[in-house]
Amino acid sequence: MSNNNATSVPEAYPMNGGDGTYSYTKNSSYQKAAANVAKTLIDEAIAEKLDIEDFSSASSSAFRIADLGCSVGPNTFACVQNIIEAVKQKYGSQMPDFHVFFNDHAANDFNTLFASLPPERHYFAAGVPGSFHGRLFPEASLHFAHSSYATHWLSKLPEEVTNKNSPAWNKGKIYYTTSPDQVFNAFAAQFRTDMAIFLEARAKELAAGGMMVLIMQTIPDGIHQSRIPSGIMFDFLGSILMEIAKEGLISEEEVDSFNIPVYTTTPNEMAELVERNGSFSIVKMESTSPWLKVGHIVNNTEQRLARELRAGMEGVFKTHFGSDIVDQVFDRLNDKSGQLINQLESSHRQGTQLFLALKRK
Amino acid sequence: MSNNNATSVPEAYPMNGGDGTYSYTKNSSYQKAAANVAKTLIDEAIAEKLDIEDFSSASSSAFRIADLGCSVGPNTFACVQNIIEAVKQKYGSQMPDFHVFFNDHAANDFNTLFASLPPERHYFAAGVPGSFHGRLFPEASLHFAHSSYATHWLSKLPEEVTNKNSPAWNKGKIYYTTSPDQVFNAFAAQFRTDMAIFLEARAKELAAGGMMVLIMQTIPDGIHQSRIPSGIMFDFLGSILMEIAKEGLISEEEVDSFNIPVYTTTPNEMAELVERNGSFSIVKMESTSPWLKVGHIVNNTEQRLARELRAGMEGVFKTHFGSDIVDQVFDRLNDKSGQLINQLESSHRQGTQLFLALKRK
Repeated sequence: MSNNNATSVPEAYPMNGGDGTYSYTKNSSYQKAAANVAKTLIDEAIAEKLDIEDFSSASSSAFRIADLGCSVGPNTFACVQNIIEAVKQKYGSQMPDFHVFFNDHAANDFNTLFASLPPERHYFAAGVPGSFHGRLFPEASLHFAHSSYATHWLSKLPEEVTNKNSPAWNKGKIYYTTSPDQVFNAFAAQFRTDMAIFLEARAKELAAGGMMVLIMQTIPDGIHQSRIPSGIMFDFLGSILMEIAKEGLISEEEVDSFNIPVYTTTPNEMAELVERNGSFSIVKMESTSPWLKVGHIVNNTEQRLARELRAGMEGVFKTHFGSDIVDQVFDRLNDKSGQLINQLESSHRQGTQLFLALKRK
Repeated sequence: MSNNNATSVPEAYPMNGGDGTYSYTKNSSYQKAAANVAKTLIDEAIAEKLDIEDFSSASSSAFRIADLGCSVGPNTFACVQNIIEAVKQKYGSQMPDFHVFFNDHAANDFNTLFASLPPERHYFAAGVPGSFHGRLFPEASLHFAHSSYATHWLSKLPEEVTNKNSPAWNKGKIYYTTSPDQVFNAFAAQFRTDMAIFLEARAKELAAGGMMVLIMQTIPDGIHQSRIPSGIMFDFLGSILMEIAKEGLISEEEVDSFNIPVYTTTPNEMAELVERNGSFSIVKMESTSPWLKVGHIVNNTEQRLARELRAGMEGVFKTHFGSDIVDQVFDRLNDKSGQLINQLESSHRQGTQLFLALKRK
């Protein structure tokens, strides 16, 4: 039943598990800053737009919350806690029990997630393994879905990009930042397919009146991908890989065939995809700027940046290049991170995060 | 919220994780035989006694099933599949989506469990970390709870047994089989406390009309603990430990202070505990005899028996004695398993499993 709406099996690139030096648990301060920026907006959306009366027809035994793409914590716990507090703030003692579902790929380190669940939590917890590019929950069973920094990951690389004879073959690059239009178009088409599947699945799973909050990378209208932090970072990693290829440790073709399966949407594009799906109304939509508040940029702590990028991206690199090359890439990134931070400081950091609150019609 | 009904933090002795030589995944054929014996009884209980009309007041979005103490598979998947088929057999297309919750201690290897979920399953799956000696689910949210070979594990060792100055100090033994009454009484009291907490939690979690099936070790009236397979096996392991102590590799006091936190109830005792709880009616209660169908006894495959015992019991031994001694214990068990099998073949193997189907009033 999982993934039965997807056209192919989604690929899994979980964040680094465990709690070691390069773990996501210890290296997700950017995602934390992003969540903090979103906190006030979530509070407002719940206070102004959540209507528990809408659920009365369902006469449910619990208020069910899902965090989609939860990784291994700790950000997911803070986020869920915030949602519960905002709901309680509004409805007080009328609330039934809270049931929280932590979702990520089956390859995610759920053992670490479960071991770090807050012992004093005031909700019942469950883990849900599987891709959110497909069904995960029974029909009309959820009341609140949340996803932070997960839906910009594509379910898979677009096929054209992996075909050497296609005009979308991304020679010498690992991202579409400065690639021919065909490459960008292939990424955009994959994202639109993925998001259509995502919205269709959530439309089935959310009860009428239920709310969904998506927090994801975005790019402001009129700004080029090469000027925003994600484009700069991915190109920087690409140049390190090409450097390693020129030294003969890997082949250039290995770099050509490697692409980061991430897409940065625009607010307009997301609004259009939501409208096309037809099951949700947009309750709140706002571009925010967490990059202006991230410690490792503001305070120029170079090692931290390299570690954070590694915690989030290592999985994709390892699958394609193997562990030895991953060490090379991130060691070199670490050595050069002053240079990367300089580039990030002069990048366009306003409005690179989209906050989108939707309500199931 | 987890364990908030328990008087202390329950101890966790998960079955061996992963899928290696000593994994529970590869070494749980006894539990499989036990589940097979129970299959027909579950089918009958569902066909005769499950009344989906009872749930209509809950107007639920899903039919929710929990397997309590699921371990890492594969038995739990077969069991859940069987329950779903029996429910579908009875109600056909009227059924809403099935939502299945796999529960075990947070220390259980959920990563292995999730990786082995049947890809073609016709239900939505979730993992629930935490002790069933406490609340795990929202009020009245479950329709079917199942637990096989889990509820005979105590939440912790009774305190008296761990106190050298108590008359329940179990000198020279690791189980109560041939111990003074005080030792047996301490185990029995702990079980009765645990089962009271277990039934109270499930009474809150099961919707009215919901069904619970418990499959657990039992001992027929009038048969002594030393004559049934579990008593024989635990005593055998105890004698190996005393042998190791006599050789000086561990102290005798280490053996004295070690006890297997398992209790074998009688059908009468369980019936009394259910009645005392008051929230359930007994739909079906039957003693069955899976030991008469277990391959490694019937076919005398000695290595298999040692491996299976290790997969289930290693966790308890390791916590107390450390890995080196665990290897010693199970290597010696392997060498002597012909002897153990002889004892098992002449043991009392009828009626050592209790099948109990309860209905939430």
